[in-house]
Amino acid sequence: MGLFAFIFYRHFQFHRFMFYPLRIIGTGVCLPGEPVSSQTLAPHLQTTAAWIEEHSGVYQRHFAGEADTVASLGASALRQALKNASLQATDLDLLICASGSYDCPVPCNASLTGREMGMTHTPCWDLDATCLSFITALDVAGCLLFAQRYRTIGIVSSEIASRSLNYADKETASLLGDGAGAAIVALPPPGSAAGIHAAHMETYPEGAWHTHVKGGGNFLHPRDPAAADSDFTFVMQGRQILRMAAEKLPAFMQILFAGTGFTLADIDLLIPHQASKTGLLMAKKHLDLPENRFYNDLEKHGNCIAASLPIALHHALAEKRIGDGNRICLAGTGAGFSLGGIVLTL
Amino acid sequence: MGLFAFIFYRHFQFHRFMFYPLRIIGTGVCLPGEPVSSQTLAPHLQTTAAWIEEHSGVYQRHFAGEADTVASLGASALRQALKNASLQATDLDLLICASGSYDCPVPCNASLTGREMGMTHTPCWDLDATCLSFITALDVAGCLLFAQRYRTIGIVSSEIASRSLNYADKETASLLGDGAGAAIVALPPPGSAAGIHAAHMETYPEGAWHTHVKGGGNFLHPRDPAAADSDFTFVMQGRQILRMAAEKLPAFMQILFAGTGFTLADIDLLIPHQASKTGLLMAKKHLDLPENRFYNDLEKHGNCIAASLPIALHHALAEKRIGDGNRICLAGTGAGFSLGGIVLTL
Repeated sequence: MGLFAFIFYRHFQFHRFMFYPLRIIGTGVCLPGEPVSSQTLAPHLQTTAAWIEEHSGVYQRHFAGEADTVASLGASALRQALKNASLQATDLDLLICASGSYDCPVPCNASLTGREMGMTHTPCWDLDATCLSFITALDVAGCLLFAQRYRTIGIVSSEIASRSLNYADKETASLLGDGAGAAIVALPPPGSAAGIHAAHMETYPEGAWHTHVKGGGNFLHPRDPAAADSDFTFVMQGRQILRMAAEKLPAFMQILFAGTGFTLADIDLLIPHQASKTGLLMAKKHLDLPENRFYNDLEKHGNCIAASLPIALHHALAEKRIGDGNRICLAGTGAGFSLGGIVLTL
Repeated sequence: MGLFAFIFYRHFQFHRFMFYPLRIIGTGVCLPGEPVSSQTLAPHLQTTAAWIEEHSGVYQRHFAGEADTVASLGASALRQALKNASLQATDLDLLICASGSYDCPVPCNASLTGREMGMTHTPCWDLDATCLSFITALDVAGCLLFAQRYRTIGIVSSEIASRSLNYADKETASLLGDGAGAAIVALPPPGSAAGIHAAHMETYPEGAWHTHVKGGGNFLHPRDPAAADSDFTFVMQGRQILRMAAEKLPAFMQILFAGTGFTLADIDLLIPHQASKTGLLMAKKHLDLPENRFYNDLEKHGNCIAASLPIALHHALAEKRIGDGNRICLAGTGAGFSLGGIVLTL
């Protein structure tokens, strides 16, 4: 071990939480096609727009067109993020695709997204923590930048949920939407306050089946004659998820903020994963946050799995609700059952 | 940014490659059931054992039983790795499942593996770089440890290829096998030489379709009536893969070793991904390595996708071909098309 690394290592033995310099230098989104209103969707679910809007809280969502792929939506969001960062694809030295859905079992989303982007040799791989994939990739990217392993990293969360909807399950089918969000992250210039104050994740496998798409892998292979069409669709046990989330959230947020030197009250904007109407209401109440510090765009896009967070982040930045120097927190729950959160200064 | 982090950041601006302290403190494998000989497999592929052994170089492989899952094989390998590290599952503060195959589209392998392990709240997520998933996870784990984000990380690569074999394609169907490998990594004690000298990855999306399982995701959904059974199986264009690998390998290895202060000649053992007989022969010849410094166990397990490398690593350690203080290199190719490598002192 080099002397410097050794001193570094010993020094930080005494710190539970560290600060990782990281700057989000560009974001982008892709919301395919025209929004599908709850009015349009309702007859397919044998219900009314009023029921959907009341129960799921989603007024419109986007559904991928026939020619769209996870890679094509992701590449479109990444192109916008690169443009906003005034960079070219060749400036990225790593591409992480962080999604819960995928185009093919093999190869990974990242290589297909790289192909869409015309990339030639940039390393790329997938990270999957379902709805928490973007937060987790941001957390990992912070460590990769800190370790000087990479300098400019593209993170893409792209989701096509619509092909795996079960229209007989109107709660889930009215909640999910398609879309992609991307962010380019890099080390900030010296002296910048931008970075990750804390990141935390907890996975409770006792709730592993609360959210699932059972069929499609080895558990129930697409070739298995026993597999029914509905086995390849999303199942979300809303009540169980909500109960676990409500039970775990307070202690989780305490651990997330411990050691940051500040509290949720010092956060300019909390951007939650747009899980569900009741989930958002529960979180807002538990965390006691006013409207203007709690981001909610569920009604416009539905739950876009991992893409929800970068889409919300992009819009919050574009709407100038947040900007350089603001403190934000991205947090949410995901299949697993997991809770994840990250606290940043932009 | 804290003063220390700032000094650290500036200091390392001048180093292209860094050293990441990391120690592999335990490994484990799971090879399900009795090995399936090429004799037994041959009639299913309408060929002979002699043809299989000559062409694929695989004399036997393991196939998962009906009750086996990616998670159950992975958990079994992880249990052995923990035992060898004299640790309990509760000692892990992160579980990364790094595989090319999976049990379910949702949730990820890691939460299902955590469930098999009886884990209660350890964070876990998947990393997918197909055959290079283990190398990539090790690389990422090195940065996570270096950044003090986590202290003890479990990495599991578990693969069930057998359910996605196309018996009409005897080259691929005779090559792939099932199995799992796991490693526990942690920061070494101060003064230890153990760590990562270099890691490098290149993805050439021009070869993204050279290895694929087309159906099962959004590209060709399991519910799509147009999907044929064979769409859910492995396709490997051996000749194209080999050509790309041969073309890219020499420059790739140069970059991998640049800045380490030593060369391939200083490596005690190169453990290549057990891609194929011709791939291994090509690599051995190109890299000009003698038999005793080039690990080859293809004939015993076939190509176990991402699990090949940790399985080989475990056996190389168990056979005492390598041990504390030895310098090793793990390297290979994967769907993507990617090349990846990592250079370690154990």
